[in-house]
Amino acid sequence: MANQNNNKKTLDAVTPKSEDISRWYTDVVLKAKMADYSPVKGCMVIRPYGYALWENIQQILDKEFKRLGHVNAYFPLFIPESFLLKEAEHVEGFAPEVAWVTKGGNDDLEEKLAIRPTSEAIIGHMYSKWVESYRDLPIKINQWANVVRWEKVTRPFLRTTEFLWQEGHTAHRTHEEAKEEVMQMLQVYRDFVENDLAIPLVTGEKSQKEKFAGALNTYTIEALMPDGQALQSGTSHDLGQNFSKAFDINFLDSDGQRKFAWTTSWGISTRIIGAVIMAHGDDKGLRLPPRVAPTQAVVIPIVYKDSTAVNDKAKELTTRLSKIGIRVQLDDREGFKPGWKYSEYEMMGVPLRVEIGQKDLDKGQVCLVRRDTSEKMFIADSEFEATVEKLMQEIQETLFKQAKEILENKTLRASSFEEFVSIIKEKRCMADLVWCGSAECENKFKAEAGATIRCFNENAVDGNCVCCNNPGKHRVFVARSY
Amino acid sequence: MANQNNNKKTLDAVTPKSEDISRWYTDVVLKAKMADYSPVKGCMVIRPYGYALWENIQQILDKEFKRLGHVNAYFPLFIPESFLLKEAEHVEGFAPEVAWVTKGGNDDLEEKLAIRPTSEAIIGHMYSKWVESYRDLPIKINQWANVVRWEKVTRPFLRTTEFLWQEGHTAHRTHEEAKEEVMQMLQVYRDFVENDLAIPLVTGEKSQKEKFAGALNTYTIEALMPDGQALQSGTSHDLGQNFSKAFDINFLDSDGQRKFAWTTSWGISTRIIGAVIMAHGDDKGLRLPPRVAPTQAVVIPIVYKDSTAVNDKAKELTTRLSKIGIRVQLDDREGFKPGWKYSEYEMMGVPLRVEIGQKDLDKGQVCLVRRDTSEKMFIADSEFEATVEKLMQEIQETLFKQAKEILENKTLRASSFEEFVSIIKEKRCMADLVWCGSAECENKFKAEAGATIRCFNENAVDGNCVCCNNPGKHRVFVARSY
Repeated sequence: MANQNNNKKTLDAVTPKSEDISRWYTDVVLKAKMADYSPVKGCMVIRPYGYALWENIQQILDKEFKRLGHVNAYFPLFIPESFLLKEAEHVEGFAPEVAWVTKGGNDDLEEKLAIRPTSEAIIGHMYSKWVESYRDLPIKINQWANVVRWEKVTRPFLRTTEFLWQEGHTAHRTHEEAKEEVMQMLQVYRDFVENDLAIPLVTGEKSQKEKFAGALNTYTIEALMPDGQALQSGTSHDLGQNFSKAFDINFLDSDGQRKFAWTTSWGISTRIIGAVIMAHGDDKGLRLPPRVAPTQAVVIPIVYKDSTAVNDKAKELTTRLSKIGIRVQLDDREGFKPGWKYSEYEMMGVPLRVEIGQKDLDKGQVCLVRRDTSEKMFIADSEFEATVEKLMQEIQETLFKQAKEILENKTLRASSFEEFVSIIKEKRCMADLVWCGSAECENKFKAEAGATIRCFNENAVDGNCVCCNNPGKHRVFVARSY
Repeated sequence: MANQNNNKKTLDAVTPKSEDISRWYTDVVLKAKMADYSPVKGCMVIRPYGYALWENIQQILDKEFKRLGHVNAYFPLFIPESFLLKEAEHVEGFAPEVAWVTKGGNDDLEEKLAIRPTSEAIIGHMYSKWVESYRDLPIKINQWANVVRWEKVTRPFLRTTEFLWQEGHTAHRTHEEAKEEVMQMLQVYRDFVENDLAIPLVTGEKSQKEKFAGALNTYTIEALMPDGQALQSGTSHDLGQNFSKAFDINFLDSDGQRKFAWTTSWGISTRIIGAVIMAHGDDKGLRLPPRVAPTQAVVIPIVYKDSTAVNDKAKELTTRLSKIGIRVQLDDREGFKPGWKYSEYEMMGVPLRVEIGQKDLDKGQVCLVRRDTSEKMFIADSEFEATVEKLMQEIQETLFKQAKEILENKTLRASSFEEFVSIIKEKRCMADLVWCGSAECENKFKAEAGATIRCFNENAVDGNCVCCNNPGKHRVFVARSY
């Protein structure tokens, strides 16, 4: 079978990341065959290599959701307009970006149907059918699904009209329990993104302006990209009783009183793949964290004339890695020079390359090349498995460390409004500052610097608002964002 | 946490299956909490228990697809109208049941977008971008996705406006290779449905009238329900060069000639869950085949006053089954009588019930009750694991055997048209008969008995057409269908 990631090969150099990160990003997405443009405006095709990364992400998260007592289900793609209208803030937030079905077969529909931009409305309705007594609570359901938001400007993974995500929806007896769920899922996201995707985060509460439409409070994980722009990577919402009142999710409590349930929702999407690409990639292409990389190591035999011994050895090394649970691929295709293959797997961000030639065979050694540092090393055959396992760990850590340096170096304290503007517009960083809590000042962040409050910083408020000089209420991270 | 499959408990008896299979089916789907009606016409909610079954189905199939060299990807939900129009038969077949998006946000769309009823059109377009040389072939991509077909009359799982499925789409260098793929995937479906879902099948080619819109030939797996109606459970299509010509999937072959690729597609959907319910269920509810049952065994402690020892033993038994890889659940909820719990797990079709009370403890025994035969047995504690493993196998086989008897008893040879009509309308069975191959006779099957050719029977043609008495061309299975 043909190498399915290798159709129409064109390995021209990508635009350097430092020169134009936006063009670099698009180049890498296409050349690494993560995604492709589709004929539908704003919709992408997630190609097999990109989808394999998504499958690894799904596997890790799904297991963790289930460990914490959630179960999966599936709710309809369509939401009748009247349902979307039931929660006032919710519809106001989402209506401008809804795709509407108005015809079924040859008939015009009596009521138009929204393609779900998110599923609180339809799930809220179902929960009201399923919940009767406090004994029916909590309900903790997750759904893996596609959603559609009619976006004007789109970019593969980062912002697309249709995207894939998971949305958790829970209903609880008390607000306290719901809040615990919200914070627990925020922590699940944080652990996953930092440990598995090697992307360091700032996390915390959103401002009221930036919260989810219909929520009481939204909590977010925010990654900082190398260009100083923040990327919202997952959110967890305390919906209070807003949706349970709108959809009548009430229950008979043990005290004989009818009460409204407290609900939450939380989601992470294929957007996170955009964060992985942008946070770790370099001028040679992707650099994927070993824990989620579809291929963790590639074995390339370097053959000249009589190739049997080298090819056999390459096969043996592949089998040995496979046996210790490494996702390994052998590339023994003929007609492609080793150097060409090296570039290809560098573009695809495969964490480790294993080279084996006649000289290595004679010396009883194997050549390893790390994708993260480009370091090349020769190791004894007997140390092969142990070294590869160690390197997987080290590469994961290095990627995190490098990204952590960016986050730290590009998060700067601002003690005045001028300093804030300079941090955003000239230094192209994220500002950490004190804010009074007023909408006026929040709007000025946007108006003067195109920046928004990404989330609250839990550190102590240590001064007055950088904008109006009134007493400070929150320390906040402010940045431009994707 | 609450038992999430247990909200709003109402365990009234279901309509007997023999009395009204249609009402029985709906009762069981709702009471076993497999699915629920949604406020969107024709769309169902797949509840956690039903979805867990789907996840098990997905896991088995996905692994097999990958073993055979397929990779997963994701293509857009939307298909521009102009793309659907490119293959004439395809659009004619699907246009009447397409849901159309005509508005995005507040704007009317210039070109309306079909919600995919199937993805040949969009995938064909992408393949034409990706395929250049014979070296790029084959492409073997599968997609797990939701699709929408605007149906007038719907029933949970069996026929819904939106459903979940997988659709494989492959492109090959030669027709021979494509045909091999088509037959291979038919075999994959057959093995899966017979071995894992315990549903015996007839399989074979569809007539030209019944084939997939746009295909050269369609091959199908057909299950026969206890009411004598066939249920098409999966299809594999030889698309010839119809789509590669419509979407220009051409490649430069090694002989220097430009040629069109040969494509296939194949799919199985959540409909198969309807087949599982209907094929195996009885008057007490579902009977799920152990290989795909979300819960394979439930442990129920029978407690009176001092319950500690019994509850501890129940926990121990649960752990022991879990350790040998059995999907086991402990139900030690207080406030529910054992008998009530028995009924609940019978309704849910859990293959094996483990009861443990003080008396069993004293005797060093465990009580097991099979869901398939209702057989109750007491076994020595030391034989617990081995017996459960053996029973899983036996229950799987019994369900298959019972369904096989139905298929055999309800497939009857018809040697005249009168006999055929009687088999369908009075005996309510499937007919096995000789057909001349003409559209006229095929139409008469439908007109006179409401039956259609389900697929060709590979056995030798042994007579003239039962309808027109002209020389026979095919032996065919003819039945009413879901």
